Amino acid sequence: MKVISPRLILLADLAGTFVFALEGALIAIQNHFDLLGVMVLAFTVALGGGVIRDVLIGAHPPNAIRDWRYAVVAFAAGMLVFFLYIPLSAFPNPLLITLDAAGLSLFAVSGTEKSIAYKIHPFIAVLMGTITGVGGGILRDIFLAQVPAIFRTDIYATAALIGATAMVLGQSFGLPRRVMALSGGVLCFTIRLLAVYYHWHLPTAF
Amino acid sequence: MKVISPRLILLADLAGTFVFALEGALIAIQNHFDLLGVMVLAFTVALGGGVIRDVLIGAHPPNAIRDWRYAVVAFAAGMLVFFLYIPLSAFPNPLLITLDAAGLSLFAVSGTEKSIAYKIHPFIAVLMGTITGVGGGILRDIFLAQVPAIFRTDIYATAALIGATAMVLGQSFGLPRRVMALSGGVLCFTIRLLAVYYHWHLPTAF
Amino acid sequence: MKVISPRLILLADLAGTFVFALEGALIAIQNHFDLLGVMVLAFTVALGGGVIRDVLIGAHPPNAIRDWRYAVVAFAAGMLVFFLYIPLSAFPNPLLITLDAAGLSLFAVSGTEKSIAYKIHPFIAVLMGTITGVGGGILRDIFLAQVPAIFRTDIYATAALIGATAMVLGQSFGLPRRVMALSGGVLCFTIRLLAVYYHWHLPTAF
Repeated sequence: MKVISPRLILLADLAGTFVFALEGALIAIQNHFDLLGVMVLAFTVALGGGVIRDVLIGAHPPNAIRDWRYAVVAFAAGMLVFFLYIPLSAFPNPLLITLDAAGLSLFAVSGTEKSIAYKIHPFIAVLMGTITGVGGGILRDIFLAQVPAIFRTDIYATAALIGATAMVLGQSFGLPRRVMALSGGVLCFTIRLLAVYYHWHLPTAF
Repeated sequence: MKVISPRLILLADLAGTFVFALEGALIAIQNHFDLLGVMVLAFTVALGGGVIRDVLIGAHPPNAIRDWRYAVVAFAAGMLVFFLYIPLSAFPNPLLITLDAAGLSLFAVSGTEKSIAYKIHPFIAVLMGTITGVGGGILRDIFLAQVPAIFRTDIYATAALIGATAMVLGQSFGLPRRVMALSGGVLCFTIRLLAVYYHWHLPTAF
Repeated sequence: MKVISPRLILLADLAGTFVFALEGALIAIQNHFDLLGVMVLAFTVALGGGVIRDVLIGAHPPNAIRDWRYAVVAFAAGMLVFFLYIPLSAFPNPLLITLDAAGLSLFAVSGTEKSIAYKIHPFIAVLMGTITGVGGGILRDIFLAQVPAIFRTDIYATAALIGATAMVLGQSFGLPRRVMALSGGVLCFTIRLLAVYYHWHLPTAF
């Protein structure tokens, strides 16, 4: 049943962790956090979404606690940014947005997969996949004492939601898990990039 | 032992979920959240307290994750508010306050019941019932980057605390569970409405 | 294997709980919280770190929920502060800092011990010990809608981190658990006090 290789999932997960940790560290430095704060924000942005998902679906202890490699990857990204004194402006915006969209897609897909493996109803699994992708960013904004950005702007969580939904729907029609995971990820990635390029926004009520 | 029908508890829970989700969505719109933000706040206000309780008492996965109907009810309330463009001012204040007091009472009672069913000490079960009632509102205020309102104003959590305490005390004196659940709920509801009407406040230190 | 007496751990834990709850209540009063808010902040500052740790390592339900004595101690401290109308300024600063450093050390050591007992990798156990010590303060700052202080200033979490690391390293070299727990705690305590006295800070990136 579980035809996606665990090794592949782990690699994708660690890649997403690295990208998100980079972003967390960059924003921490921008906010004048000290070394500890940079490490905490790198860890939180990268792994917070997965930790929330694991606590909610009952996967104890969460991946990021059970497997020390996640923390090592997050801290490595944090140190890289901190000790090379890399400012956020050093990254060309398109690169950052593309990497971030890739991280979002990887997390949305792997989070949905894991939730289904834990017998969570597909409708809720889609929400869990989305939380995996956006939970770290929500925690980041809470740490910065700001209203989480994704509640007001942009197609971001929505891209994850659509990718995860497509994946689950395809699987429910009997399409191969691996193919649907890939398709869902590509769909999320594409929607996210198109949304940035064309300035798509969700509607507000008035 | 468990003489309150699970079906009744479920219905009461879903009713409370709907009312709290309405409120969450109304406040999200007031804060210019987009469609996604409205859905997240509807879900969080309605189900956040129960999720915190379930994580704390060790009920895995939490109700709101295990049973998809909770999320559907919360999102339905959110969509209703969003697509009908209902502003907060459309609701007569007394109606809103009464519905909210009813939701608080339902959650306080069902949260205390569930905690006791999970072998939590009655003293702590009362706290868990209160968290079930007020946890969603605390998360809402954190998302809005504000100090949670219940820490500074009003008899709100206190009403839940008193209702839950009465319920647990009565049961410990051998009074029937069902009667005490009803009495605790009515007590919480009454105290909350009296507090609003007479502007009761808790003391502050100076 | 578990050579530190559970009774001693409990006593140390309750002592740390009392000190942190005092601090939480003092800060709540300073922020004009009402009686309920004071109790919530006393509980959160004292027990929030341990609850986060227990949820993360999979110890269900968390200590503070399973054993009612923790809540009683936290609320007692809160009431003491509230009903004696004690302002933060009533405490000589050195006393407060010393008590706080003691609480931090107790929590860092007991949190690391417990995580190892739950088969968490030592590297992650050190992080869990640190979260036990600083998690309550982070939650406090989130409740106050502020950026957590420890992300920007001072050697605080770092002291816990160093103490916990020393403890775990010593144990991995076969030194007795009890001796290393004591040494780790003393090291954390000493570093924290030296940091305050000499105004040590962690570096920021620029």
